[in-house]
Amino acid sequence: MTSALVGPKGCPFCAIVAGEAPAHFVLSTDVCAAFLDARPLFPGHVLLVPRVHRPTIADLAPDEVTALFTAAQSLCGAIETALGAEGAFVAVNNRVSQSVPHVHVHVVPRRRGDGLRGFFWPRHAYASDAEAAAIAARIAAAVTLPSSTK
Amino acid sequence: MTSALVGPKGCPFCAIVAGEAPAHFVLSTDVCAAFLDARPLFPGHVLLVPRVHRPTIADLAPDEVTALFTAAQSLCGAIETALGAEGAFVAVNNRVSQSVPHVHVHVVPRRRGDGLRGFFWPRHAYASDAEAAAIAARIAAAVTLPSSTK
Repeated sequence: MTSALVGPKGCPFCAIVAGEAPAHFVLSTDVCAAFLDARPLFPGHVLLVPRVHRPTIADLAPDEVTALFTAAQSLCGAIETALGAEGAFVAVNNRVSQSVPHVHVHVVPRRRGDGLRGFFWPRHAYASDAEAAAIAARIAAAVTLPSSTK
Repeated sequence: MTSALVGPKGCPFCAIVAGEAPAHFVLSTDVCAAFLDARPLFPGHVLLVPRVHRPTIADLAPDEVTALFTAAQSLCGAIETALGAEGAFVAVNNRVSQSVPHVHVHVVPRRRGDGLRGFFWPRHAYASDAEAAAIAARIAAAVTLPSSTK
């Protein structure tokens, strides 16, 4: 997908879920659906989406979080079984680098030496422990969780 | 973390969770904990782990999947609020490219033009629709889900 259409009206993933655009499905539940990315990193690269249009992870209802990532867990196993993958990469882009504004979990089959790398580099240590502590404190102060999971 | 220690005995994340190794915590629940990656892609790069040693996503119990990704959802919001990030990247490496064999969800603050890219390229279309259909069918046949989420 290269277009970044906004809203369910022109959303390419809503169109796929509704059966109005073609896709090769691999999983379908009440809450979510998964299909092949048409331009995969590797064959078997799956996109997993909630059926309801939710722009980002933050917009998911609690039961959708559960359903979506339970399905992602299942897909990790499925691509290993089905494709002989040695591992899986699971990733979600929120807003930045998110080509379609409908939450989609990438589940990508991996093999050692497959050439997929680089994303997690370069990395840099914090200038000081105090700098790290200050940043951690700011994030911790901003964390909000449903009371049932605290 | 650069060492790939195996098992809870020498696991660096188990040591952090147990308070035996230092870390800057940002979130703590009954099921999981999150702390700063010591060598972040960007300041505020968080690692979220289950408290119990689980090597990969496949090893998570259903309630752990829910707790972990509910916390990940919360962290996406927290890093935006706390750090003024424009988005977040959420990722899990399973086995391949997984430096520590204790499930860890990367939650990375993103900004447009931050230079983080490349991971999702190059990509390639399937040679034929039939090839894609065959691969989808194999994955679909291997999907197993808890009955409550089907």
